[in-house]
Amino acid sequence: MTVVLQGALAREDRPAWGDACPIERTSTLIARKSTLLLLREALYGTTRFDDFVRRTGMAESVTASQLRALTAEGLLVTRAYREPGQRRRSEYVLTDAGRDLIPVLLALAAWGDRHLPREHGLHLTHAACGADIETGIRCAAGHAVAEDEIVVGLERRS
Amino acid sequence: MTVVLQGALAREDRPAWGDACPIERTSTLIARKSTLLLLREALYGTTRFDDFVRRTGMAESVTASQLRALTAEGLLVTRAYREPGQRRRSEYVLTDAGRDLIPVLLALAAWGDRHLPREHGLHLTHAACGADIETGIRCAAGHAVAEDEIVVGLERRS
Repeated sequence: MTVVLQGALAREDRPAWGDACPIERTSTLIARKSTLLLLREALYGTTRFDDFVRRTGMAESVTASQLRALTAEGLLVTRAYREPGQRRRSEYVLTDAGRDLIPVLLALAAWGDRHLPREHGLHLTHAACGADIETGIRCAAGHAVAEDEIVVGLERRS
Repeated sequence: MTVVLQGALAREDRPAWGDACPIERTSTLIARKSTLLLLREALYGTTRFDDFVRRTGMAESVTASQLRALTAEGLLVTRAYREPGQRRRSEYVLTDAGRDLIPVLLALAAWGDRHLPREHGLHLTHAACGADIETGIRCAAGHAVAEDEIVVGLERRS
């Protein structure tokens, strides 16, 4: 079972979309394990370089270059801070665009929890009511949506 | 604003989780652009090697090695087919575990459509009722969930 393609997408002879596909554009920016671990940590409230290194377990060089890339791409923003007696440093905070990646991180977490289970799992709940965070696909009318009920079409935006 | 961490996760001195984190485990398997493009095509109904190559625009060698990896990891399964007068070949179909990655692909698509807009966007609707597919975060009680209302805790599974 697959999704239902509409219009130009449904053509048997369609060529590669390249960067006309939003999945491809987003993947170009963030489909690297190192990037996703830094985004996870930023979402968890980590802001300082040393904490990113310790909590991701990545090399300092990788951490530095990926934090720089995420900042250049507008997913993180730097903010200056200074500990007493030390030099000025930068800390890294998610931008609105970075925070909008939360559904990607939650979907990765839900899949790993289900299909690659370990001794402990992540349990995600809504602070206001205590209910579990949804991980399935729903429509705006509130229906659970099976994959063969997803209609994918191209829409002109400009 | 960040999520609310609970228990061991909330400790300032927590070390790298490594592969105890389900985001990291899933990322190890699929956080590569080539892998995500093949999963997109499989979700769109592509099953044959030549179609994967044409519709992703990737080199044959990359396509072959990534299809093999996805099959070894249980995200795709091969099925034999034979066109009249030709030799037996394999086609590739999503497994249940592969199909469960749809929320990841939809989240990548929604982000790219919003933050890296182009002339055309993807419009995803529910075939049964016509409503848009939800891209925000909701809880099982149906509330829209802001990021600072997401509680993340560890839960023993075994």
